[in-house]
Amino acid sequence: MTTEQLVNQIHKKKTFLCIGLDVDLNKIPKHLLKEEDPIFAFNKAIIDATHHLCVAYKPNTAFYEAYGLKGWKALEKTINYLNEKHPEIFTIADAKRGDIGNTSSMYAKAFFEDLGFDSVTVAPYMGNDSVEPFLAFENKHTILLALTSNEGAFDFQTKTVEGKELYKKVLETSKTWKNSKNLMYVVGATKAEYLSDIRKIIPDSFLLVPGVGAQGGNLQDVCKYGMTKNIGLLINSSRGIIYASSDEYFATAAALKAKEIQEEMKTLLSN
Amino acid sequence: MTTEQLVNQIHKKKTFLCIGLDVDLNKIPKHLLKEEDPIFAFNKAIIDATHHLCVAYKPNTAFYEAYGLKGWKALEKTINYLNEKHPEIFTIADAKRGDIGNTSSMYAKAFFEDLGFDSVTVAPYMGNDSVEPFLAFENKHTILLALTSNEGAFDFQTKTVEGKELYKKVLETSKTWKNSKNLMYVVGATKAEYLSDIRKIIPDSFLLVPGVGAQGGNLQDVCKYGMTKNIGLLINSSRGIIYASSDEYFATAAALKAKEIQEEMKTLLSN
Repeated sequence: MTTEQLVNQIHKKKTFLCIGLDVDLNKIPKHLLKEEDPIFAFNKAIIDATHHLCVAYKPNTAFYEAYGLKGWKALEKTINYLNEKHPEIFTIADAKRGDIGNTSSMYAKAFFEDLGFDSVTVAPYMGNDSVEPFLAFENKHTILLALTSNEGAFDFQTKTVEGKELYKKVLETSKTWKNSKNLMYVVGATKAEYLSDIRKIIPDSFLLVPGVGAQGGNLQDVCKYGMTKNIGLLINSSRGIIYASSDEYFATAAALKAKEIQEEMKTLLSN
Repeated sequence: MTTEQLVNQIHKKKTFLCIGLDVDLNKIPKHLLKEEDPIFAFNKAIIDATHHLCVAYKPNTAFYEAYGLKGWKALEKTINYLNEKHPEIFTIADAKRGDIGNTSSMYAKAFFEDLGFDSVTVAPYMGNDSVEPFLAFENKHTILLALTSNEGAFDFQTKTVEGKELYKKVLETSKTWKNSKNLMYVVGATKAEYLSDIRKIIPDSFLLVPGVGAQGGNLQDVCKYGMTKNIGLLINSSRGIIYASSDEYFATAAALKAKEIQEEMKTLLSN
């Protein structure tokens, strides 16, 4: 998918919500456990109920790998369902990969070609040759971890390197990599005030922003400091939406929660 | 597996070689492609031929994920085969994972419990709460990326943070994490001279050292600067061993190559 197609979808649906599909069998409604593939059954119900309220879905691969072969199969079925039923939706494999060149090429092939995701999250620690194999794919997007929303972000990401925080060094250096136009960035919303500095370095790139809501981030602040003329924001919510209820009406509850956020986004987009 | 069991195995077999099982269907002998599961058939043959010459096997998960469900199944069969036939061997899931706390817990469960690996490689960028969920598993080992052997290592890892290189900051900070006794570290052998500095920070920890041989590292130098009284080194070789030949005698060729390295290690251990 091109960035332009993503922006068009945002304007059409009046939302820049991304829904995280972090499926935990201990948290999904009990009646689904009788299904042949409870993970896919859960995802399908959530997608059917919310696809008009969001522009992206983001399965975190850890939750699928934790269930071994069954989990991997459920991930395949989920991405296939999205690509067949809702090809306009932007898909993110939240995998946080990154390895030496030939290995990153294998990961890129796995997520972009075999599974058919539009994008994948990648860790920057191993530098240029660990990320560039992902960037080589046309109309695929590499979402680089810059500033994450967890406590551990303060261990290294905010430490000063050559006069600036490491995450800013990551942003600057990554701009020099081959095919850097295919980069997007993860920036945690718990630090919305950092976004104006970030926009000085990457004025146009899309940001995937976790941590709005449950983790304390504020949607209005994120838009104030981070929105660009092409919007440039995907706001992720996972647990707050998909686990809004654990009874048989869970999908409707998820849709109501997503609708609430979409309404707020609609207002922010019209300003 | 306890560290003591690993050290005992090293003394018994007179080797600290780790063999990387990075299986690429384009590189394995053509006749194996007729097998029902060519990846596992290749791994089984390599393991049968080399298990007495090494103390660890390290499948890089990217190579398995790239083949989707079939790849994942081959990885399961490989780790099951190792755990049943050679329970004394140390197993490493080279997955380079790392995510926010609840997600890292899912990864730890996947690799340590479901698949039954002894260890997993983890990226440090997201800090303490992304690594500690791995460290919580008794007699399991978390191998943290410190200084990698690729060119991109110079992008961030060797940059100065608070008066020292980032990878040294990672080593120091990680020592303060809960259950840090379960940490080992990835340190690339292309910079063997760095090992004496590294040993000042982590005098006893095991290091997983890639990049000896093909990537230019020198085994003698690595031992000179990096070996401890408990050895403290696992030297990895992947392509140099497993692709020593691509004909029907590939397993014998791999064993000969591994034997060559083991002989050198035997001498170094007796010094």
